[in-house]
Amino acid sequence: MEILNTINSPSDLRALPLEQMPQLAQEIRAKIIDTVAETGGHLAANLGVVELSLALHYAFNTPQDKIVWDVGHQCYTHKILTGRRDQFSTLRQDGGISGFCNRQESQYDTHTTGHSSNSISLALGMAVARDLSGADYQVAAVIGDGSLTGGMALEALDHAGDLKKPLIVILNDNEMSINGNVGAISAHLSRIRTNPRYARAKSNVRGILSHLPGGESLSALISSLKTGLKSAIVPGMLFEDLGFVYLGPIDGHDIHAMVELFRQAQHMQKPVLIHVRTTKGKGYTPAETFPERWHGASPFYIESGLPKNGKSVSYSEIFGKTLAELADKDTDIVAITAAMGEGTGLSHFCQQFPDRFFDVAIAEQHATTFAAGLATAGKKPVFAVYSTFLQRAYDQVMEDVCLQRLPVVFAIDRAGLVGGDGCSHQGIFDISYLRAMPGMTILAPADGEELKMMLRYAFSLQAPVALRYPRMPARRLEICRPPLQYGCGVKLTEGADAAIFALGSMVETALAVQQRLKEDGLQLRVVNARFAAPLDTKLLDESATACGGRIITLEEGVSSGGFGEACAAALASTIIGKEKQTDIMICALPSAFPPHGERGNLLRAAGLQPDQLAEAIRERWFQDGK
Amino acid sequence: MEILNTINSPSDLRALPLEQMPQLAQEIRAKIIDTVAETGGHLAANLGVVELSLALHYAFNTPQDKIVWDVGHQCYTHKILTGRRDQFSTLRQDGGISGFCNRQESQYDTHTTGHSSNSISLALGMAVARDLSGADYQVAAVIGDGSLTGGMALEALDHAGDLKKPLIVILNDNEMSINGNVGAISAHLSRIRTNPRYARAKSNVRGILSHLPGGESLSALISSLKTGLKSAIVPGMLFEDLGFVYLGPIDGHDIHAMVELFRQAQHMQKPVLIHVRTTKGKGYTPAETFPERWHGASPFYIESGLPKNGKSVSYSEIFGKTLAELADKDTDIVAITAAMGEGTGLSHFCQQFPDRFFDVAIAEQHATTFAAGLATAGKKPVFAVYSTFLQRAYDQVMEDVCLQRLPVVFAIDRAGLVGGDGCSHQGIFDISYLRAMPGMTILAPADGEELKMMLRYAFSLQAPVALRYPRMPARRLEICRPPLQYGCGVKLTEGADAAIFALGSMVETALAVQQRLKEDGLQLRVVNARFAAPLDTKLLDESATACGGRIITLEEGVSSGGFGEACAAALASTIIGKEKQTDIMICALPSAFPPHGERGNLLRAAGLQPDQLAEAIRERWFQDGK
Repeated sequence: MEILNTINSPSDLRALPLEQMPQLAQEIRAKIIDTVAETGGHLAANLGVVELSLALHYAFNTPQDKIVWDVGHQCYTHKILTGRRDQFSTLRQDGGISGFCNRQESQYDTHTTGHSSNSISLALGMAVARDLSGADYQVAAVIGDGSLTGGMALEALDHAGDLKKPLIVILNDNEMSINGNVGAISAHLSRIRTNPRYARAKSNVRGILSHLPGGESLSALISSLKTGLKSAIVPGMLFEDLGFVYLGPIDGHDIHAMVELFRQAQHMQKPVLIHVRTTKGKGYTPAETFPERWHGASPFYIESGLPKNGKSVSYSEIFGKTLAELADKDTDIVAITAAMGEGTGLSHFCQQFPDRFFDVAIAEQHATTFAAGLATAGKKPVFAVYSTFLQRAYDQVMEDVCLQRLPVVFAIDRAGLVGGDGCSHQGIFDISYLRAMPGMTILAPADGEELKMMLRYAFSLQAPVALRYPRMPARRLEICRPPLQYGCGVKLTEGADAAIFALGSMVETALAVQQRLKEDGLQLRVVNARFAAPLDTKLLDESATACGGRIITLEEGVSSGGFGEACAAALASTIIGKEKQTDIMICALPSAFPPHGERGNLLRAAGLQPDQLAEAIRERWFQDGK
Repeated sequence: MEILNTINSPSDLRALPLEQMPQLAQEIRAKIIDTVAETGGHLAANLGVVELSLALHYAFNTPQDKIVWDVGHQCYTHKILTGRRDQFSTLRQDGGISGFCNRQESQYDTHTTGHSSNSISLALGMAVARDLSGADYQVAAVIGDGSLTGGMALEALDHAGDLKKPLIVILNDNEMSINGNVGAISAHLSRIRTNPRYARAKSNVRGILSHLPGGESLSALISSLKTGLKSAIVPGMLFEDLGFVYLGPIDGHDIHAMVELFRQAQHMQKPVLIHVRTTKGKGYTPAETFPERWHGASPFYIESGLPKNGKSVSYSEIFGKTLAELADKDTDIVAITAAMGEGTGLSHFCQQFPDRFFDVAIAEQHATTFAAGLATAGKKPVFAVYSTFLQRAYDQVMEDVCLQRLPVVFAIDRAGLVGGDGCSHQGIFDISYLRAMPGMTILAPADGEELKMMLRYAFSLQAPVALRYPRMPARRLEICRPPLQYGCGVKLTEGADAAIFALGSMVETALAVQQRLKEDGLQLRVVNARFAAPLDTKLLDESATACGGRIITLEEGVSSGGFGEACAAALASTIIGKEKQTDIMICALPSAFPPHGERGNLLRAAGLQPDQLAEAIRERWFQDGK
């Protein structure tokens, strides 16, 4: 008999005997595999925390008790248990439930998932608020060993250890962040894990010590060694040093043991860190074997593990391949990733040039300034990073790269709409946040071929460069591709009725708009802007004059502070003829966090599909025909 | 005989016998006190590192060896030793030398000072580049105990410990960051410092152990206790855990001892952390007694320590006082600072409401998300932070506050030009970086009275709010002050020739421009915009119509992505009459990092003084008279 269909909320779960949990875990695991095979999603992480999620909702009185999930991509079991079982098949689909925690979706989601390493800060804020208000509930943060390397998590541990408020941090240690873990903290955890002595040491040592013949000096020694003993015997000295009680490591697939430990921790009235070991991909062999490949999965065939969609080449792959070619000739090129080597297409580079490849773990701030240091000493660093994650290094890009005018190349992947990942991962702010940085050049290729040209060009500039490209199969447009000229766009079509300045991924759209309007007898000039900064003000002015002042801008980013606004400001005082000024139509995404969904649908929602744009242009200027 | 006047570069220094260093230190200390008494500057930190700086340049072969100074405000001795002795009197003055390290100034400055906690990342980048290139030089980062709490420094330690490249980190432990240190790491350092046993323990314990009668189990125990012993006896286990060799603590005013230890560290061929203890303000009693007050000093009388300039009320003080008044009535209000309690005016709040005051150390990311957690649980947090430092929490403001639509108030101090601190600390980007964040309300008061109104109003909005105010004596303008209305500006004067939309600190300037042009017979409408987001598009449109399409925007921030561009975009399609469109003149700072200097001079350099603006307006529209 199925148990899962009787669980409509965590209180149903807590009414069951613990003995039924393993069966329930199996049912949930099957549901996750079946669903993600259809929808795509974060498979490996979710299969790893089925038991942990069950134990949490069993031991904690949710939603009164607060659970904060770091990175949130491991929330599927949590969602299934908290009233979203029947909607689970809509995961990451247009209009369906999100693949992350979302405050709008459920009271059990304490936070709409942001970016990595924030859970301890959030949980600490909640714990402090609770104590200030004299309320009585538990707060637990669940954080992976990968997220723990983010500086912010360490800032929060530092503060929490100091404040000493009751707070439970559950370290979900699956021995990797997204791409296999790096760094000294990871090594520390590994020492704990791999030392079988730890499990036995505590009792043994106590026994031995109590039987030693002891003079005064030995007692004194033993007393002075207390801290030392603790460190040898109690693993997790790093956390104890930071003011936490450390419990574990414990098997993250043993629900009984976890529930017991969680309940103990609830009574401790101080900051507690519980070290839970889980296996990523648990229960589905392909994901267990290659967890990094199964981090974010496309729809797949369950039996074979093969993807359902035919393989297409991504911009990430083109970037990675081109970079390796360039690095083969130029030994000064070095590549940096913040735990996203696979996602950013750097796998080949890493294999070919292991000495020049640096995975700094989830630490975008450090990655950026580390790149600055490399550039200071003559290297040509490229930091390959998702648009949304580069937000985490805003200050470092500004202060340590731009202020220094250092030649660091930012290869900004997933720039634009990101599909299923949704609101927290949209790469739609980078144009705005980079454009305000003095001396930053911003490039966006119209297709895969142009990405290759631009990457080569970026290294030649000897200055800070941001090269942004989208998450979608790489296009190959039939366009002219003259060599890059600094700050210059390229006219792709001629026309005198209006001019579209399109950036990067939207050049394809601009050409489609031009085609549609051609059918109405309108001739549009399409410009591949290539640069979001600096602007090609000459071509803008000239186009305004040639096209009766009618300028359209088109970009895959928010309008506030974006490419279109820059064009509007540049054209604000351009006067056509005696009196008439330019009239600019800014086509960009509205100031909002678009939800998850298919890129085409999200563009349509923003009015950015070719038919919509063509219609808008007709309406604005050509209602009475040309 | 004076030694200092013979030192034109560090090689002159290294030619001297070590015995002369104490005298040299005295001479340098006197020069720093004399100079800063005239120019203002960072006094306490610089007096603390005179000997450390001497020891560094003595033991390291600069500039071949690279020294990276974290935060850089402690570089005065370094500057005096590296060819800038005679220019030192121009410190922080217009056209003079910078108060921070600056790559443009000297080859000894490896990096133009950015923000806190970046030095280990930079040094690691340089060390890696050195090894890749097969070069042979030393790299040392000098970081304070305050900066060490920044997550980025911990990310870098983590990575450096993993890479194992030769690298020297000098921890300058003066037992406080800017405002007294907080957090568990600080407590760890304090345990090391205050335990006299550490110094003796090493030899004692070895002696005792070698004389113990030992059976098998005891040997085994001792062997298994190695790590533990190390931790009890060797302080700095936290750093050893992270993969560093820990040396110290050592007296940071003993040049001999430091030179010796630095030379030892140079031979270790692995990451070494040297713990140096210094006294902030050393050698100048007022600064030694109250180091936090003497962090950033205005010009002062050396004998009394009293400031030379008469006391004026700052916006920070008005903020702090108003907040305390509000908090007295509303117990849900809590205040957060990242080691800037004094600078942001929170000292009184802290004394009055110690339970609701949180200094999280230099950890702006954590501060922001901690605030989000507090808001989630029903509190009304305000994070008081300098504009330039909020850059460090860009991602957290976006993801953990705006995406959640949480009522966190950002009290953004030092928004605009910052005077003597110069290029790395200009608060001129916040309008651009906040304006792109969906749902963020941005307020800027025209004067001190309006700051009070706006702070009260900010708490009432129940949404993310940024309230930006400048570093200058608070103004009190003779203007009308109707209650705040969401997204609405206020007309201060009527006129039909042109309209100035001025933001915050520039309202005063706009009124002066209006006065000047009135003398020419021109009537300007001056609008106090109040909001940078959302824009008052209705008033913009109406003003364009009323003023013949002539709109001027005025802000103390960069133009790219700023308030003026937003207005330009909003007005782009506003049509006046049949054909004529609006013509907008955007007055803002250019896309650059303005150097240190007096605010008035920096505004003049950007063409933003009233006479310049009046002239530009006349030229643009009224060349032939009205």
